[in-house]
Amino acid sequence: MENFNFHVATDIRFGKDRLSELPEVINTFGKNVLLVYGGGSIKQNGLYDKVRHALQAATVVELAGVEPNPRIETVTKGAALCREHHIDVILAVGGGSVIDCSKAIAGGAYVEGDLWENLVLKRQYNGPAIPIVTILTLAATGSEMNRGGVISNMQTQQKLGMGGKNLLPKVSFLDPTNTFTVNAYQTAAGSADIFSHLMENYFNATPGTDVQDGVAEGLMKTVIHHLPIALKEPENYDARANLMWASTLALNGLTGSGKTGTWSCHAMEHELSAFYDITHGIGLAILTPRWMAHILNETTVPKFARFAKEVWGIQEENPEQAARKGIQALYDFFLENGVPMTLPEVGIDTEKDFDQMAQQAIAHSTISKAAFVPLQKEDVIQIYQASQTPSTFI
Amino acid sequence: MENFNFHVATDIRFGKDRLSELPEVINTFGKNVLLVYGGGSIKQNGLYDKVRHALQAATVVELAGVEPNPRIETVTKGAALCREHHIDVILAVGGGSVIDCSKAIAGGAYVEGDLWENLVLKRQYNGPAIPIVTILTLAATGSEMNRGGVISNMQTQQKLGMGGKNLLPKVSFLDPTNTFTVNAYQTAAGSADIFSHLMENYFNATPGTDVQDGVAEGLMKTVIHHLPIALKEPENYDARANLMWASTLALNGLTGSGKTGTWSCHAMEHELSAFYDITHGIGLAILTPRWMAHILNETTVPKFARFAKEVWGIQEENPEQAARKGIQALYDFFLENGVPMTLPEVGIDTEKDFDQMAQQAIAHSTISKAAFVPLQKEDVIQIYQASQTPSTFI
Repeated sequence: MENFNFHVATDIRFGKDRLSELPEVINTFGKNVLLVYGGGSIKQNGLYDKVRHALQAATVVELAGVEPNPRIETVTKGAALCREHHIDVILAVGGGSVIDCSKAIAGGAYVEGDLWENLVLKRQYNGPAIPIVTILTLAATGSEMNRGGVISNMQTQQKLGMGGKNLLPKVSFLDPTNTFTVNAYQTAAGSADIFSHLMENYFNATPGTDVQDGVAEGLMKTVIHHLPIALKEPENYDARANLMWASTLALNGLTGSGKTGTWSCHAMEHELSAFYDITHGIGLAILTPRWMAHILNETTVPKFARFAKEVWGIQEENPEQAARKGIQALYDFFLENGVPMTLPEVGIDTEKDFDQMAQQAIAHSTISKAAFVPLQKEDVIQIYQASQTPSTFI
Repeated sequence: MENFNFHVATDIRFGKDRLSELPEVINTFGKNVLLVYGGGSIKQNGLYDKVRHALQAATVVELAGVEPNPRIETVTKGAALCREHHIDVILAVGGGSVIDCSKAIAGGAYVEGDLWENLVLKRQYNGPAIPIVTILTLAATGSEMNRGGVISNMQTQQKLGMGGKNLLPKVSFLDPTNTFTVNAYQTAAGSADIFSHLMENYFNATPGTDVQDGVAEGLMKTVIHHLPIALKEPENYDARANLMWASTLALNGLTGSGKTGTWSCHAMEHELSAFYDITHGIGLAILTPRWMAHILNETTVPKFARFAKEVWGIQEENPEQAARKGIQALYDFFLENGVPMTLPEVGIDTEKDFDQMAQQAIAHSTISKAAFVPLQKEDVIQIYQASQTPSTFI
């Protein structure tokens, strides 16, 4: 296990009927609130009205329409609003996109000049930031309890992660009932995102990390158990609650601390989203089993066999067979839960950008050097290619 | 899953060679330091010298000799020292006893009059407290990242838990090498304590808590894997690191949040310690399998069967048989790792106090109403009695 810091001070308010706590929470930080949200689903399901009601005593400026892959233009607009209206606190009501966007705004308000150049491209931001409070509406990214975010620039076809210690949300309201209206596709995509965070941390070369891996296995099993229930019964509270809390813990440092190395599938997926604006979680679900099969070798097989046994309960003596069965189980799980498992199904029906996307995946990350198994451009292209048609792994 | 708050802001500095960070950490809080430690093992292993060296710039007052079950007299003494020397920060160097004692001192410094009456017997303390920094030397109680502590009063034969929001350590240094010199007995007792925290949270009647239970299972498997390694190779870094981080996560709220109900074995064990001053973890290891067997019934059998399967990998179709095999596996695990598994082996060779201890276990806790399976006085006596001789459960 490597040395690490773990200091995740977000005040989590988990459960239903807790919006009465919002005024006091907001008041801790000030009166001027930037309310950030997405495409209006919170207006349809009534959450918007409840939040506005709870904010009666505050001065509220709105930034609506944050994109599913939040764009730098929206960040720039939000940062300008913060400066213009002397915003004291940002209230992000939405999923990871809204919260990620709010993080970039929170720091961006203090950054001069072009925010793509001076904030996102720097990747690490250690300056001051406006405090963020979140009300989560999608179990997926974990952004509600971590320091990072991902911002897209459609002009340059770049989608880049950034983060900073002051971007950690101060308070996050996690009410599972706010995810009752999330449709089946987005629910599955969110769970694929959770699963991918766990997998990216799990398949890592640092030895002696059983705490992190045991926690990850427990969270994976939780997703495997509860996603089908949530799809069948969208208002099943316990299913939504388990997915929500799993999403938060999957990426708050618990399963990644004490490990070194970079993530593989996220680097490859960010290029799919940057070029084709597809749903992040779906892209991850498509790439992950192909990536696993691509990197399965003598060195990696023990971890794959452990994954098969501990996560899927596969009783198989031969490590390579166990590994393949585990990959198949993951692929089938996504498939059975309605995830389109090939690139053409999400509109990527040509290889024409594979070369450039692979090049950028290498350029924007350290996967060619620091991944669980380092990936070169040719590897990435092969993984994209393998994702074009249905697969079997056994 | 029940509503919960999770706000655990302790700044964890995990890993080796990090004491160079101590001066800056201490300086954040002030110059006057109360250094609290136990029986002097830190003098033998060199940690004391390193800490004193790191505190060169500070004004240090010492409170040495904190007992394994820390006593109210020591708390009172520490609180007086804090007031007399205008202490800014308490540095607790030790295991759970030292940290628990430091928590009571941290709050007690602000409490008038008798600290047993006005602090411990109140159980919940919401007043101000001196900031606490810890350097952990034993993987066991989890006190390094939670708000609670246990204090003993040998005169009244009481051992009671207390806690408060301001008693959470601000910074905790978790260096696995500081546990290299912990002997086999204390290492096993510490692991039994970790395991018990996980079990107490796991065997709970709240439905729909798979995140918490999955995390607990992962941590249990970590302890099962690494305790024998640590016993065989006391300086195996990864084994010590996994036990240490598991101890912290076992009781920082992760596995208990979202559940209601009280703990059973701790309530029963606290009376063993209060009457006979035995090692807490050993008492827990002795009681736990007997408690499990005592409460195994039609309602509880599914959770026991899950425990057997997920934690011990027991493949057994019949739920009751699976449950019994799981209990046996736990008992054998403790036994194989050198834990004395009967009461006479730890010096309790008479039944004479069982009646009074059982009565106090009920009086000092809510186990008769709010436990996984509520326990009356007769139940507790039977569990004590079953702990007198070696057991088999299958």
